[in-house]
Amino acid sequence: MSIEDILLEIRKRETFLITTHVNPEGDAIGSSLALALALSSIGKKVEVITQDPVPKGLKFLPSSDTIKQAKMIDRRFDAVITVDCGDLERVGFLKIDNIPGDILINIDHHVTNKGFGAVNFVEDAVASAQLIYDIMKRLNISLTPDIATCIYTAIMTETGSFRYSNTTSETFKIAQEMVSAGAMPWNIAEQIFNRNNIGRIKLLGLILESLDRSDDGKISWITVKEQMYRETGTSKEDVEDFINFPRSIEGVEVAILFRESNQGWKISLRSNGKVDVSNMALEFGGGGHSMAAGFFIQGGHEEVKKRVVDSARTFL
Amino acid sequence: MSIEDILLEIRKRETFLITTHVNPEGDAIGSSLALALALSSIGKKVEVITQDPVPKGLKFLPSSDTIKQAKMIDRRFDAVITVDCGDLERVGFLKIDNIPGDILINIDHHVTNKGFGAVNFVEDAVASAQLIYDIMKRLNISLTPDIATCIYTAIMTETGSFRYSNTTSETFKIAQEMVSAGAMPWNIAEQIFNRNNIGRIKLLGLILESLDRSDDGKISWITVKEQMYRETGTSKEDVEDFINFPRSIEGVEVAILFRESNQGWKISLRSNGKVDVSNMALEFGGGGHSMAAGFFIQGGHEEVKKRVVDSARTFL
Repeated sequence: MSIEDILLEIRKRETFLITTHVNPEGDAIGSSLALALALSSIGKKVEVITQDPVPKGLKFLPSSDTIKQAKMIDRRFDAVITVDCGDLERVGFLKIDNIPGDILINIDHHVTNKGFGAVNFVEDAVASAQLIYDIMKRLNISLTPDIATCIYTAIMTETGSFRYSNTTSETFKIAQEMVSAGAMPWNIAEQIFNRNNIGRIKLLGLILESLDRSDDGKISWITVKEQMYRETGTSKEDVEDFINFPRSIEGVEVAILFRESNQGWKISLRSNGKVDVSNMALEFGGGGHSMAAGFFIQGGHEEVKKRVVDSARTFL
Repeated sequence: MSIEDILLEIRKRETFLITTHVNPEGDAIGSSLALALALSSIGKKVEVITQDPVPKGLKFLPSSDTIKQAKMIDRRFDAVITVDCGDLERVGFLKIDNIPGDILINIDHHVTNKGFGAVNFVEDAVASAQLIYDIMKRLNISLTPDIATCIYTAIMTETGSFRYSNTTSETFKIAQEMVSAGAMPWNIAEQIFNRNNIGRIKLLGLILESLDRSDDGKISWITVKEQMYRETGTSKEDVEDFINFPRSIEGVEVAILFRESNQGWKISLRSNGKVDVSNMALEFGGGGHSMAAGFFIQGGHEEVKKRVVDSARTFL
């Protein structure tokens, strides 16, 4: 299976449902919108439907207001395309024995993707948006400023603004093409990085007071308590990426975020490369990647902290 | 005057002093080292001498340990090249009537540069490093991984990791070339962004407690007191870029950093585009650019805060 099959299916079909994973981020939304805009531009009928809504920070994306939410689909399409979903369960509302379309097409850049579609375009790429761009080129669909904005945003967010290890010379080549086609790096970065609310910044201040680390400096952690949300008028969404602060400290190998939740603690783990934190998460019944993983654990604050930090020690 | 004159002078001369401005950052150090490595590779004798030392975060740059510090130069060179200096005073140790070389060459991307050199290559570019690259290409000097690392770092830091308004399609083209030539985006970003010490992060926590804003939300500020350095084992260097936190809040037009110093307050200003903060700084005897400016002011904390915030209001 390859890009050829996708091109064939797209050419011969008329109506498309495009969807992506729950808790969608830049690549999920950017790729879905880019594909929808591209297919619309050649006369196809396209709907983008997701289980979760577009995050506030991505609502600036062209056509993002056309994305609808659903928990199930009761219409049928000529084709259903999943974008950026490592497995079908990540979509949320789709079941393999109840696909609301004549064919299921799977486009994804996660190499662990097992190919759950009838046709699959799974390739190692900086972002799923790169695969969308490849498809567009092969279908002779022109880039518009709107499409370029969606693809640029996907790539920029997926590489942490060109800082992660997935950033290659190819990444910059695509970024260059997108900017030539009308994507505006400064405006996009302002939307993504400079739309903080004051509560989120105050929350960061409170959280950083909890910053601590092991004696050898290799494990560092921060803690978020429910009361901090109340004090600053924020919610758990606002904590996103704060784990990068302990991670950024020189010498740290494992960064941990302890997040108080209803019945226990949500733990996020980040590695600086040496430790595969997915192994650590597995021990607690969680999962993830080698660099980022997480799990849920019950218990009191001090007891949980000790258990998790002690476990991290064994992985160093 | 143009690049042609520079090429001519470089070709016919043998020994070079390369220097840059006080408080050097990524572009200053990256450009100086790239030029030094390039000229050395074609057999020239080159020394890089600066008034201030290489900042800790840039010591990973190839050959950065060859940069020497001086307050005056008592030898003579065939040519003295200033890189990234908007005017000669920015170098610190050079006086126009006492240049330790037969010719003064001025390479800079600040369009306000008046051309203080005997030959000048002043052109609007994302970073001075881009001009160094232009010179290299014209001299047929090949990129090495070391040179590419210096140029990439200069461009990456000067664009705030491709987020500032100076980021264009040309910027990405150069970044792509540098990565193809051996610059490693992830490693460089780790050196630049993930070498925090724990004190700096704790300092950020303390500073964010001081976060405040005007009733209309258009002016936001943070305050650093001397005691915070003592409490966290940090120094004023560690405050660098914290002003981006108030600046990142939605609705903020002017961000202000109040930094307690020996005899008063050092004020940094950042604009989100609407207000030209250099005009505001001028009123207090300071200076800067439209987006970033600063000044020094004496007085008590509350009084100074009121004066500066009141002044900001008049510029909205």
